[in-house]
Amino acid sequence: MPVGEAKAIELIARIARRRSREIVMGIGDDAALYRDGLVVTTDAYLEGVHFDRSYLELSAVGARAVCGTLSDIAAMCARPIGVFVSLMVPPRTARRDLRELYLGMDAVCSLFDTEIAGGDIIASPRLGLALTALGKTRAPRLRSAARPGDRLCVTGHIALAETGRLALKHGLNSKKYRRAIERHVCPIPRIKEALRLAPRIHGLIDTSDGLSTDAGHLATESGVRIVIDRAALPVAPETVELCLELGLDLDRFLFSSGEDYELLFTSQSALRSPQFAVTGVGSVARGSGVWLRDNGKLRRLRPSGYDHLGPKRANPKP
Amino acid sequence: MPVGEAKAIELIARIARRRSREIVMGIGDDAALYRDGLVVTTDAYLEGVHFDRSYLELSAVGARAVCGTLSDIAAMCARPIGVFVSLMVPPRTARRDLRELYLGMDAVCSLFDTEIAGGDIIASPRLGLALTALGKTRAPRLRSAARPGDRLCVTGHIALAETGRLALKHGLNSKKYRRAIERHVCPIPRIKEALRLAPRIHGLIDTSDGLSTDAGHLATESGVRIVIDRAALPVAPETVELCLELGLDLDRFLFSSGEDYELLFTSQSALRSPQFAVTGVGSVARGSGVWLRDNGKLRRLRPSGYDHLGPKRANPKP
Repeated sequence: MPVGEAKAIELIARIARRRSREIVMGIGDDAALYRDGLVVTTDAYLEGVHFDRSYLELSAVGARAVCGTLSDIAAMCARPIGVFVSLMVPPRTARRDLRELYLGMDAVCSLFDTEIAGGDIIASPRLGLALTALGKTRAPRLRSAARPGDRLCVTGHIALAETGRLALKHGLNSKKYRRAIERHVCPIPRIKEALRLAPRIHGLIDTSDGLSTDAGHLATESGVRIVIDRAALPVAPETVELCLELGLDLDRFLFSSGEDYELLFTSQSALRSPQFAVTGVGSVARGSGVWLRDNGKLRRLRPSGYDHLGPKRANPKP
Repeated sequence: MPVGEAKAIELIARIARRRSREIVMGIGDDAALYRDGLVVTTDAYLEGVHFDRSYLELSAVGARAVCGTLSDIAAMCARPIGVFVSLMVPPRTARRDLRELYLGMDAVCSLFDTEIAGGDIIASPRLGLALTALGKTRAPRLRSAARPGDRLCVTGHIALAETGRLALKHGLNSKKYRRAIERHVCPIPRIKEALRLAPRIHGLIDTSDGLSTDAGHLATESGVRIVIDRAALPVAPETVELCLELGLDLDRFLFSSGEDYELLFTSQSALRSPQFAVTGVGSVARGSGVWLRDNGKLRRLRPSGYDHLGPKRANPKP
């Protein structure tokens, strides 16, 4: 019987026995956390599954992958201290292709004063990258620390990256969608933001799998109910426009689109920052699940985001 | 122009800028080394390239991969503190297959009191594993520390793992080859041995790519000449027999067969241990390259081991 992602992780977590007293948090958060504040995360990206070279340069493929992996470091309130790259490379890959890919990865590392510190390179029929990022933190933040009474906040815009991906894919007027395309092509992880907000953050996750799914992780791991206020969601005008242009349901698009790599967190009060966009989008209460308050009505919001093992994906990518 | 592995690593090392003062050793050894003794290594394994399920159970696929990755931790004289798994899994993979794979990985972790501490799981047309292992050491040993006047030593037997792989593949009498097959299926990394020998080790590498290639890395990184004494090599009788049976050139087989995951190191004097096999197999001198002393004659030994990017592989696997 084939298994979905959640079931697979559950199975793996049961088999992978905990042995080390050095590890505070193993499987189950954005990254593993060691007693000394070391944070470790690993992510794989495969051509045709996670990226499409028909509309992405190789430097962008590399940059995006590093952004996505470092976002898990941000989601623990840590700063990165190294990136490790397992490269799966098709035969006859040109020297300049390799160069472009690594230049893209190195450029993102340079923004955070970190580096590609090691890796492996193997032959493969398909281009792929498995990245591991290490980070350090003195004040880790976990998914499990949201408390009833908290406000729910998010940085940036909801579903902006997916807006950019579809604009690129469908060759829509790229000027209007420039900001969205940039968020898709190079979603700079919110590391600086996380470190700045850290003292006031309780529960924290990054939005990689879609708002409904990621909020669901916060709710489950913290054992709380999360209520999202539809009217408060920071939606970019170009996202509304794209949904009109492509005939997509805006609400479904907002709740299921992944890879924004923004911070979704809870805090005692709604936060504001003069340096970057943070928006209060809901609240935390006793109970369970994710709920949506819309026009005075409350309804359950089921996870409709990205399942990496796919067959039951609620919202296949258009 | 397609590139070979050495050229690719050279290119990557040039692009990947060094930025962090926390990193003592980045690209260029078995693992990266941080100032606080943290050691990090990453390795990828792909079905059809690195393993063949027609004669390996999934638990063995998992166990072998963890053994190979932890061997890089041994090669830095470190003890493992965690394994991270990026799993690439074909659609319709059964629950019990996943279970078997992770049981195999967990079993090797348990031998060293470590654990699968995190990972990622993605859909892929082909089964693959990208593993990252972390280790800690107070006395790291590098490839670059061999000194003229040292003795060259190796644990275990040369080319025993490849003997086992071919015995399995060709369905040869498995009783005779049991020890060799075991070394192929589950090449327990020499972590305990490395920690015990540490105080007397100068330069150190593990034998993953074949004796000629791995000795070449020691020679190049240390800026020395390595002379291997043909008569001293620890060759198992079953390896001699296999070469006869399959019509393979024994010498070529010894110098090019990889994945033994033994320790190859230099020391002020030849070491012995009552607990495990260590053999003095050569010496270190001023100069460069790897040389073979055989019947009183000295000849240059070119790297004939495994090139992970393949087209120029000197010795394609039979």
